[in-house]
Amino acid sequence: MIEAVTSEKIEDRAGDEAGWLVVVGLGPGPDRWLTPAASAVLDAATDIIGYGPYTARLPARAGCEVHASDNRVEIERARHALELASAGRRVAVVSGGDPGVFAMAAAVFEAIEHGPVAWRGLDIRVEPGVTAMLAAAARVGAPLGHDFAAISLSDNLKPWEIILRRLRLAAEADLVIALYNPVSRARPDKLREAFAALGAIRAPETPVIMARAVGRPDERIALTTLGEAPGIEADMATVVIIGSSETRLIARSGTPFVYTPRSYGAAR
Amino acid sequence: MIEAVTSEKIEDRAGDEAGWLVVVGLGPGPDRWLTPAASAVLDAATDIIGYGPYTARLPARAGCEVHASDNRVEIERARHALELASAGRRVAVVSGGDPGVFAMAAAVFEAIEHGPVAWRGLDIRVEPGVTAMLAAAARVGAPLGHDFAAISLSDNLKPWEIILRRLRLAAEADLVIALYNPVSRARPDKLREAFAALGAIRAPETPVIMARAVGRPDERIALTTLGEAPGIEADMATVVIIGSSETRLIARSGTPFVYTPRSYGAAR
Repeated sequence: MIEAVTSEKIEDRAGDEAGWLVVVGLGPGPDRWLTPAASAVLDAATDIIGYGPYTARLPARAGCEVHASDNRVEIERARHALELASAGRRVAVVSGGDPGVFAMAAAVFEAIEHGPVAWRGLDIRVEPGVTAMLAAAARVGAPLGHDFAAISLSDNLKPWEIILRRLRLAAEADLVIALYNPVSRARPDKLREAFAALGAIRAPETPVIMARAVGRPDERIALTTLGEAPGIEADMATVVIIGSSETRLIARSGTPFVYTPRSYGAAR
Repeated sequence: MIEAVTSEKIEDRAGDEAGWLVVVGLGPGPDRWLTPAASAVLDAATDIIGYGPYTARLPARAGCEVHASDNRVEIERARHALELASAGRRVAVVSGGDPGVFAMAAAVFEAIEHGPVAWRGLDIRVEPGVTAMLAAAARVGAPLGHDFAAISLSDNLKPWEIILRRLRLAAEADLVIALYNPVSRARPDKLREAFAALGAIRAPETPVIMARAVGRPDERIALTTLGEAPGIEADMATVVIIGSSETRLIARSGTPFVYTPRSYGAAR
């Protein structure tokens, strides 16, 4: 089966009288990382729906209703958004970072798949953004400069054994690894378990970056090693990047740069 | 070793009389995906350096010199940029997408590591952008909605056997896989070899997205399967996304949506 998606087909938009739903990536936080395309969607929306801390970032817009919700109800939030779009509203569902990476876009499509058939005919789009690992990497150099994996440690929806298996295989593949959702109340020690699993394969001096709230006033970035990383605190706003065997530091006055060379074997 | 990188330290910028170098991500193409932060760097630069097709995207800026170069000379381009910054110029090194993902940032740090010690004292920063796989995913739904790997098929700087090993391990880990640099003149069949390696582990009906020049006028996106993907043409502007065992389609009038559910096992 081959289906061609042309730019024209996707961008053909119904008139203003029809509702639409766009899942919008706000980037990691500051307005300077919000794309003009994302801004334009927010300006055109009649309704903005999202997790409270994300909707709180946005300035009030005249004639736009903001629906802030708790993080735990992603699928209900998605259904609510789809109902509003069905009723002719212009709905922006907002996520931090990129909405397609461990965020609201998958929840919206899940709701569509299991919802009324009419939802499949709605004008639904996703507007990409700068995801947290890219901003975190940029802060310290270029640790994602070579092959990498992005893995969520959230075990709400995925067995912990699957997560550990993926971590081990990614480490065996010598990929740089970015961890999202590194902590939770239900499993406070899971990040330490993840470090232990990786430490069985990768050297203790492997560079590790723990980047919290990148670009926001409460940003905090720690550069450490796999051996020492378990001693550093992380929260749900933290993204963790574990280097490959090739990832290296460039010493200088102040914090070293961290990067993964483009050539395999350059670091040996 | 623990080094804290605070926002303040990184953002402390020397006065205008000192040179700087910022590696800037332009996003996948259109201005609507260029962040305000990236625009601000371009506006402040005295010199813009990059691969010709990227510099050609930018409008001319009064008082700004554009240095367009061939793709093959990344490390020379990086050294040239560092020399200009050393001489007090304000230099933007531009990459498509995100500069930290298979792009210029790693080349700049490589040049710094192997260059004059004085380069380590320069004001060097990386400005993140929307990388191609995020824009490609957004076009079709949310295929990167769960754990994924990003792997470059370029074997200029990495042995082909390492690439195949990484592909196999990523497939065994059941990660969604985004392939960058899928073709080259030197190894025209490497994408087919990659599909064959993945096809030995993953089912032939696995969804595959081949997205070329996303967001640009010559965009072309094909939604196909792992079994049929080898018949579709790709070029260096193409990013290929291969689903996990969980990635699924939502049938509707027109092109189906493609997404990877947040829950493991939801697709079974």
